[in-house]
Amino acid sequence: MIDRNKVILKSPITTPQGGGYKSLNVTLRKSLGLFSNVRPVTALHPYVKTHYTNMDVVIIRENEEDLYAGIEHQQTQDVVQCLKLITRPGCEKIVRYAFEYAKAYDRKKVTCMVKDNIMKLTDGLFHNVFKEISAEYPEVIADSQIIDIGSARLAASPERYDVIVTSNLYGDIISDIAAEIAGSVRMAGSANIGLNVAMFEAIHGSAPDITGKKIANPSGLMNASVMMLSHLGMTDMADKVKNAWLCAVEEGCHTADIYKEGSSKQLMNTSEFADAVIERLGKLPTNLPGSKLAEGGGKIKIPAYIRKEKKQELVGVDMFMNWTGTNPNEIGKALTEMTGLGLKLKMITNRGVKVFPNGIAETYCTDHWRCRYIATSAEIMEGNPVYKMISYENILELMTALLKDGFEVIKTENLYEFDGKRGFSLGQGE
Amino acid sequence: MIDRNKVILKSPITTPQGGGYKSLNVTLRKSLGLFSNVRPVTALHPYVKTHYTNMDVVIIRENEEDLYAGIEHQQTQDVVQCLKLITRPGCEKIVRYAFEYAKAYDRKKVTCMVKDNIMKLTDGLFHNVFKEISAEYPEVIADSQIIDIGSARLAASPERYDVIVTSNLYGDIISDIAAEIAGSVRMAGSANIGLNVAMFEAIHGSAPDITGKKIANPSGLMNASVMMLSHLGMTDMADKVKNAWLCAVEEGCHTADIYKEGSSKQLMNTSEFADAVIERLGKLPTNLPGSKLAEGGGKIKIPAYIRKEKKQELVGVDMFMNWTGTNPNEIGKALTEMTGLGLKLKMITNRGVKVFPNGIAETYCTDHWRCRYIATSAEIMEGNPVYKMISYENILELMTALLKDGFEVIKTENLYEFDGKRGFSLGQGE
Repeated sequence: MIDRNKVILKSPITTPQGGGYKSLNVTLRKSLGLFSNVRPVTALHPYVKTHYTNMDVVIIRENEEDLYAGIEHQQTQDVVQCLKLITRPGCEKIVRYAFEYAKAYDRKKVTCMVKDNIMKLTDGLFHNVFKEISAEYPEVIADSQIIDIGSARLAASPERYDVIVTSNLYGDIISDIAAEIAGSVRMAGSANIGLNVAMFEAIHGSAPDITGKKIANPSGLMNASVMMLSHLGMTDMADKVKNAWLCAVEEGCHTADIYKEGSSKQLMNTSEFADAVIERLGKLPTNLPGSKLAEGGGKIKIPAYIRKEKKQELVGVDMFMNWTGTNPNEIGKALTEMTGLGLKLKMITNRGVKVFPNGIAETYCTDHWRCRYIATSAEIMEGNPVYKMISYENILELMTALLKDGFEVIKTENLYEFDGKRGFSLGQGE
Repeated sequence: MIDRNKVILKSPITTPQGGGYKSLNVTLRKSLGLFSNVRPVTALHPYVKTHYTNMDVVIIRENEEDLYAGIEHQQTQDVVQCLKLITRPGCEKIVRYAFEYAKAYDRKKVTCMVKDNIMKLTDGLFHNVFKEISAEYPEVIADSQIIDIGSARLAASPERYDVIVTSNLYGDIISDIAAEIAGSVRMAGSANIGLNVAMFEAIHGSAPDITGKKIANPSGLMNASVMMLSHLGMTDMADKVKNAWLCAVEEGCHTADIYKEGSSKQLMNTSEFADAVIERLGKLPTNLPGSKLAEGGGKIKIPAYIRKEKKQELVGVDMFMNWTGTNPNEIGKALTEMTGLGLKLKMITNRGVKVFPNGIAETYCTDHWRCRYIATSAEIMEGNPVYKMISYENILELMTALLKDGFEVIKTENLYEFDGKRGFSLGQGE
């Protein structure tokens, strides 16, 4: 059915915290390739209480990758890891969607938020793609902020922002912030857009405690429906429904969650509020800004991804060991003495910090050691390292030798250069 | 010198965004084992403008691990990864520090914020340790929130919070939010606490554009110094300086960044403001709540980590391949046909989503494939999987066979059970 209709209007479902459950929301989004989560958040001052009366921001969140790939491993007693995956096709799709969205709905500015001062490869990729693609949209202002400062400024002065594009986890956090400070958590809709299929939903979760009480605010699902209509190109219809909803809100028809003695006119239950919106179809709001989705044209096109191949060369390997000693020099010495393998030990880190050679005694060491090997022939001088190609056989021989010497390799990460450029980060202090 | 004195009072330094630089801040924190970043944020209403007049929150952020380990790899044309590392000793130290801090400074509640509904192993570990350790502090209220909702509520109603403890990245974001909404980014200090050494600094970065103009607000460094004094057990002295500073602020002695016509009394430059604080040593503030660091006793003790060994058994391996095809069934079939290795293919995921066997055609596939292998003898039934032990030799044989068949293994992740409990996550849809 999904395959035939290409759109889904979904009601809230809940993922239990902890335990063994995979999030069904995440499964749906990812299996269906719904790469873009779109959350418009607008202040409804004075009808909904907020400090930020001019807020009108759209958060466009990458929806398929990042830490939400859910790839986690425990391989020692002390340490657990989760893989953050950022992909070029993923970045290209979401960044282009953000700029296309800005054009389609007449938005002026797109702000990119990531943390590439720390995550230079992953968040760096997102930011670089943002810079590349923004150049194709000179009519839209492109702006970048580090996520910590960006989140803080969004929380304190959301009126600075128009469209924000960001990766999955950051987007999860800032879209909740935006909705909460606008007072609209129970009011806002969101879209999950794929190349073939799209899913629309309220941003709030399920509320089993009020089942059957008829007090739920249907606004979240209504706003989701408005987004669905505009996605389908029915932007006139979308404006009509949205404007009727705005009229109902500004005329004081309020469900219990936003009802305030004085400013509200009528306390309505779920179906009474829905009827109030239906009665106002065709009307335009008086005080709140009207919906103008139709004006942008509503057309969004995302081209297919074309992989740009770079020359990829294997230049080393990170061997991760489970080792319960505490002195880095001990494991460092033992590994340095294993020679004749075509590979040499360059350094050892613990939680990313170089501890061999020349570590600092204060660095705390867990039982999870990353040992970096490069070609015996590589010349690694300060400031101008020259790596040399190694072979897969080198890696297999090294693993065999390590195993024989009693070192437990728990994971490996190959080191590559792409067009001669390092495709791996250095250790802290390397 | 650091080794002799055990404390550092550090001025701001800046890490360039992008490019090849490692953050010196991060290097310092991690090399010295400064596991705890402490940021108290208090509203100074009406002297510093904020919507949140009763805010008084302390954010305790894990400082050494998480994605900030900075371990990144690119191993295919499309995909870049960063390792998120969360460790039991890291979690125990930071969570215990938070509860000890609450006791030492007479705080009532500690709130844990992580995202364990998605990251069940990594953030799950943090949350589990929180639950374990909170039980040792019945006099302190323990509370948990998912980070997206938690950040949002912190941004909208910070007065709900007292002490918040969280992992590195989340802490980075929420401590900036707290400072920004309190209006105190240029005013607040922070501490980086280790078992041996501690470092104190202003939370703001460097501002080379105002160098030499004498307009900088020294409050950030002053508040850092107050934290240093209390850390050294000189809580009386800390209160004295803090109270003098509060007096100067409430008496309207303001540097340019917080000066407001009307409510401010005197526009002061950097050294004038410092003198104003010195003049008020011994005075107590009239309107703002006075500093009472001395009342809690100021004593914090963190015991050494004791590893609890569980029985660790190797039960499989995730082989990550660089494969440029697009049809999961093609690679799945080829890998299934390789038999006689002691291992069998269980499933393939792409960006964490199961695509073989029985994938969905809509799932977008990159060139980064995770192929999960388990013992040939393992019985994996719905709902009741029984894994079987494998050997390291099995893994080496499989890698050799894959290499021979032209499959490029770019990374491996061993799968372990700990006391019979799965130490790895399932694929989305597995």
